[in-house]
Amino acid sequence: MAVYTEVGDQDLARFVAEYDIGQVTSCKGIAEGVENSNYLLHTARGAYILTLYEKRVSPADLPFFLGFMEHLANSGFTCPTPVRGRDGEALRRVCGRPAAIITFLEGMWPRLATPVHCRLLGDAMARMHLAGASFAMARANDLALAGWRKLADACAPRAGEIDASLAPLIRDELRHLEARWPKGLPAGVILADLCPDNVFFLGERVSGIIDFYFACNDFFAYEIAICLNAWCFEREGDFNVTKARLMLQAYRRVRPISPDEVAALPLLARGSALRFLLTRLYDRLNHPAGALVKPKDPMEYARKLRFHQAVAGPGAYGLD
Amino acid sequence: MAVYTEVGDQDLARFVAEYDIGQVTSCKGIAEGVENSNYLLHTARGAYILTLYEKRVSPADLPFFLGFMEHLANSGFTCPTPVRGRDGEALRRVCGRPAAIITFLEGMWPRLATPVHCRLLGDAMARMHLAGASFAMARANDLALAGWRKLADACAPRAGEIDASLAPLIRDELRHLEARWPKGLPAGVILADLCPDNVFFLGERVSGIIDFYFACNDFFAYEIAICLNAWCFEREGDFNVTKARLMLQAYRRVRPISPDEVAALPLLARGSALRFLLTRLYDRLNHPAGALVKPKDPMEYARKLRFHQAVAGPGAYGLD
Repeated sequence: MAVYTEVGDQDLARFVAEYDIGQVTSCKGIAEGVENSNYLLHTARGAYILTLYEKRVSPADLPFFLGFMEHLANSGFTCPTPVRGRDGEALRRVCGRPAAIITFLEGMWPRLATPVHCRLLGDAMARMHLAGASFAMARANDLALAGWRKLADACAPRAGEIDASLAPLIRDELRHLEARWPKGLPAGVILADLCPDNVFFLGERVSGIIDFYFACNDFFAYEIAICLNAWCFEREGDFNVTKARLMLQAYRRVRPISPDEVAALPLLARGSALRFLLTRLYDRLNHPAGALVKPKDPMEYARKLRFHQAVAGPGAYGLD
Repeated sequence: MAVYTEVGDQDLARFVAEYDIGQVTSCKGIAEGVENSNYLLHTARGAYILTLYEKRVSPADLPFFLGFMEHLANSGFTCPTPVRGRDGEALRRVCGRPAAIITFLEGMWPRLATPVHCRLLGDAMARMHLAGASFAMARANDLALAGWRKLADACAPRAGEIDASLAPLIRDELRHLEARWPKGLPAGVILADLCPDNVFFLGERVSGIIDFYFACNDFFAYEIAICLNAWCFEREGDFNVTKARLMLQAYRRVRPISPDEVAALPLLARGSALRFLLTRLYDRLNHPAGALVKPKDPMEYARKLRFHQAVAGPGAYGLD
């Protein structure tokens, strides 16, 4: 939860005047999103999100993120859409930061994901993967294997501060993954962070997906693996195979999962567990005193990683 | 900025079902308000604020706060109004905390208060003071003289951690105020924390006042003194007498300020500066590591206090 940059009265008025969205009648900082500053705007025309991109988002990547959002929305996939100003531009600056106004998406992310949520997610994820096929831009995943190696090296000397088992776990796992990481699986644009906070529901439907700021080109099955980790473990740490099965079945009805992808899933699940373990560990070790956001627990993903290390095969995820 | 209590999906659904406000389509934690958890709800009927009262608000005081809000709104003074549930109750519980749904107030608080804001504030404050006269409940100000003495005693041993001048400044000032604090000035319900964050504007009008959780019975002129401190100093520390004059002139046009009140204003301004100095100092000294809210600077109010100590009389505030 965070608002890092306070937008002054004149700055806001000048910024919004670049758009054709009417006068602002309310502007409240939102306690969601750990990377950027977000404000919920009410104007005579409706509700919008004003996002100021803070230092963890590279300005060079913003045209990709905003472009993908717009592409999906134009493909009939519900998600926020950047609003273009009178000059046709969606991206400009306020308070020294890149900033954009995005349409407001109604819906709520589930604090406790149910099997129904997982089924609906599987369907939405597959539709998003298909809709992305016609998007012209590309962005490499900087949190893939090479990125994990960098994070692991940066964390290794101090991983023991969190737990003595972490350094050997990370070292051995990275070696294992580097020797076996698959090549040539079906790929396209994935969100790479499709956790429950980023998927909004209204009753029994997905109302849309938010937070495109990790989107990149990578294997579709890697996104599925991320979702197995983010959606199918119970709070107590147990893997709920019913949730996984419903998610995968719903996905497959929209986009078939190839035998190669099925076979790779346990390894991809290990990789995605390592990715979140590493970023959480890095954030925990480099957490500034007095920061506004509490870093998440890296050990949650160490436990998930150990689960995937122990599975006998893709059947553990409810795949036939 | 803060959301201290995360409201679960089922808890939210059950809570909102007690009201006749339609289905919730969005629920976002707001990064405003340092005392409570606040969510902005969108429903089919409109926008609302869901407030969960955290430990700094005494549950026994909530009927007073909510009752005063409702009283003002019914008197034609724009402010949020508690929404009553189907059972007629405005106050209930969720996630183990007292909670209420309040109507949403459009408008924005000024990040930088201008002379025009000060004039509009003076008018609104006086109207609020008059409208409160017919409110039947009362609540003592627990941050008055006796409360300052308690805070001063609690802070004294460690005040030097912030600045060496603080302990003697507080000791001498408190002695001065205890010997001279006025009696019998016109009194009624005041908000006692009418800072810019709590006054919303839409263009050139006050759209309303929020945050009633320090409201209490005390001198009207003490509220004026609080506002002189909160609205009329520049960021650099200078007192802007133009802002003060505009505020007081606008106030007087609605509710006359008696000669006794005028005479007491310098002392009341000293008292209100000491009050905010003490609460900020206490919060700074007792700030838990990793807290979500950064404590405000007590020295800002030490400087304001020294300004008021040096004034020759009420003329310093632009009073004729």
